[in-house]
Amino acid sequence: MKPWSDKLRKVVPYTPGEQPVNTEIIKLNTNENPYPPAPGVKKALNSLDDRRLRLYPDTTAKPLVDALAAYYHLGQDQIFTGVGSDDVLAIAFMTFFNSDKPIFFPDITYSFYPVWTDLFRIPYETKALDDNFKIIKEDYYENNGGVIFPNPNAPTSYYEEISLVEDIICHNRNVIVIIDEAYIDYSGESALKLIDKYDNLLVVQTFSKSRSMAGMRIGYAMGNKELIKAMNDVKFSYNSYTMNLPSIESGIEAVNDEAYFKHNIDKILKTRTSTVAQLSQLGFEFPEPGGNFVFATHPEHRAKELFVALREKNIYVRYFDMPRIDDYLRITIGTDKEMKILMDAIKEICSNPT
Amino acid sequence: MKPWSDKLRKVVPYTPGEQPVNTEIIKLNTNENPYPPAPGVKKALNSLDDRRLRLYPDTTAKPLVDALAAYYHLGQDQIFTGVGSDDVLAIAFMTFFNSDKPIFFPDITYSFYPVWTDLFRIPYETKALDDNFKIIKEDYYENNGGVIFPNPNAPTSYYEEISLVEDIICHNRNVIVIIDEAYIDYSGESALKLIDKYDNLLVVQTFSKSRSMAGMRIGYAMGNKELIKAMNDVKFSYNSYTMNLPSIESGIEAVNDEAYFKHNIDKILKTRTSTVAQLSQLGFEFPEPGGNFVFATHPEHRAKELFVALREKNIYVRYFDMPRIDDYLRITIGTDKEMKILMDAIKEICSNPT
Repeated sequence: MKPWSDKLRKVVPYTPGEQPVNTEIIKLNTNENPYPPAPGVKKALNSLDDRRLRLYPDTTAKPLVDALAAYYHLGQDQIFTGVGSDDVLAIAFMTFFNSDKPIFFPDITYSFYPVWTDLFRIPYETKALDDNFKIIKEDYYENNGGVIFPNPNAPTSYYEEISLVEDIICHNRNVIVIIDEAYIDYSGESALKLIDKYDNLLVVQTFSKSRSMAGMRIGYAMGNKELIKAMNDVKFSYNSYTMNLPSIESGIEAVNDEAYFKHNIDKILKTRTSTVAQLSQLGFEFPEPGGNFVFATHPEHRAKELFVALREKNIYVRYFDMPRIDDYLRITIGTDKEMKILMDAIKEICSNPT
Repeated sequence: MKPWSDKLRKVVPYTPGEQPVNTEIIKLNTNENPYPPAPGVKKALNSLDDRRLRLYPDTTAKPLVDALAAYYHLGQDQIFTGVGSDDVLAIAFMTFFNSDKPIFFPDITYSFYPVWTDLFRIPYETKALDDNFKIIKEDYYENNGGVIFPNPNAPTSYYEEISLVEDIICHNRNVIVIIDEAYIDYSGESALKLIDKYDNLLVVQTFSKSRSMAGMRIGYAMGNKELIKAMNDVKFSYNSYTMNLPSIESGIEAVNDEAYFKHNIDKILKTRTSTVAQLSQLGFEFPEPGGNFVFATHPEHRAKELFVALREKNIYVRYFDMPRIDDYLRITIGTDKEMKILMDAIKEICSNPT
């Protein structure tokens, strides 16, 4: 053992989905958008004045914050931006979860939550979803150090009604409740409308899914200005300049093109509807999907075997070898063409006797 | 007080230099490069295929790591990249400084160090530089939890000989020693040549200064592969995808254009030489500069007054209202034209009786 080894931070890092270099594959494993970003994004990049790159970017990404504030009709002091919603969530964990009491989140949820609690040494307790992968709201009434859950949830894709979300916020007025809305644009009402009513609510969203910009790394949080200030203070204690110039400039273009944004979402929703119908016909079962993905299981075919067989056909979906969900596949909604290839492959695999 | 206020992390954030919106000013306050990045950077951005943005970028920024590895003749497992060297340093603090013993750094140094120790609750002790702003190496022989200092130091710009650096590394084999080389390209030998000899050494550099890419946010660390793996583990526990696609693609172009890089440095060094001569002639005193900036004091004119008077003339330099250095100005090396405007302004200010 090296003499300095005992000073290293021991962590169990998050395992992201594979990003294969081979572009021939059908990639339905990391919930990316199959369509390109708004045309303005390309224009912003292609016309970026390289001489501006010699200067540090605005520390608060103000031009992007202004665009988001105008879009959501919020104050500029109600929006925080970061390098993807993972950066935003990590800073939120650091900023808000500093209690001796455990924070609460569902047992089946975004697998980064326990990683951050480990990294920042935050006590936590998971609350089991019911057998239909629904939140049992009363579980969150107990005394705690904070609450976080995604809505729609990942990897289940299940959307909880806003009334349940509000109920949990109401019952936790003395801690911060974070609603992680990475997939909300494919679903029902956002908790955003509640941020003026509840000063303990933080809503986190991202450009990685509905805005087709996973490669640009833009996430943001919305809440009352005291929460946003507290996050900015922590951010300024970590890295003053996080959003680079291309992110800021192209992010603005994405926000300002609402027509393209809505059209992009509509296409995904249409494909999701047909995917749901086809998967049902093939005998799959799944919670009603609220995100750009379906979390499916089959009574006769093991998820792990399907995962491996699809992979052999260069079709990547996501499989989690974890309790309660180890017989499910998380399948991202791609283009109609990609979904047809997937369905044909599943039919072929399922028709072969194993 | 809000009921959740006691769960907020209380921090004293870093104060970055001003980034004024007015482009008419002469900006010599944040050590940016006055010249644009290598021409390939513009080309990479202008030809970026926007369809690639829908996908997550490579989690390890592998294409950029490969380019850096080739440039420095290192293994790919010896390089870590992040969103500016602040991101890299923050992750290094989290990864390596987990001892009950205090980490050591100079009393006059990069002012982010005490901010990170505060954020991550790392005990620390500062070691006073001597009256010429030089490190007293014996101060670092005591038992400690880790060592970090910039070389050249900031804001003093003073470069310590590699023999002193090696001596401190040698005397601290049971902890990690981080040499923060943001300004090394304007100076003497890098500690990079020592990373194979000392497994407790981490060298951190940046694209923000000598590569004119502060607006792109690219920093990197080099060390033995065990250190890099430990940093990647922590990074994957914080944010899996930090380097966005434009950073990766344009960063490669900057690394690969060595001729432009050297020419850019040469221009700054020439201007630094003439700046040093002119400031001396005006009666200023300063440590021999090793970075792209001069840390200057004047026996007859108070730094703070000069700072304010220059600001009124739309010339921004950096002033730190801190013990031992509150009569110094940190002046970034700009273009020859900018430095002439600065010198004329200083002459005018100094010739006016106050």
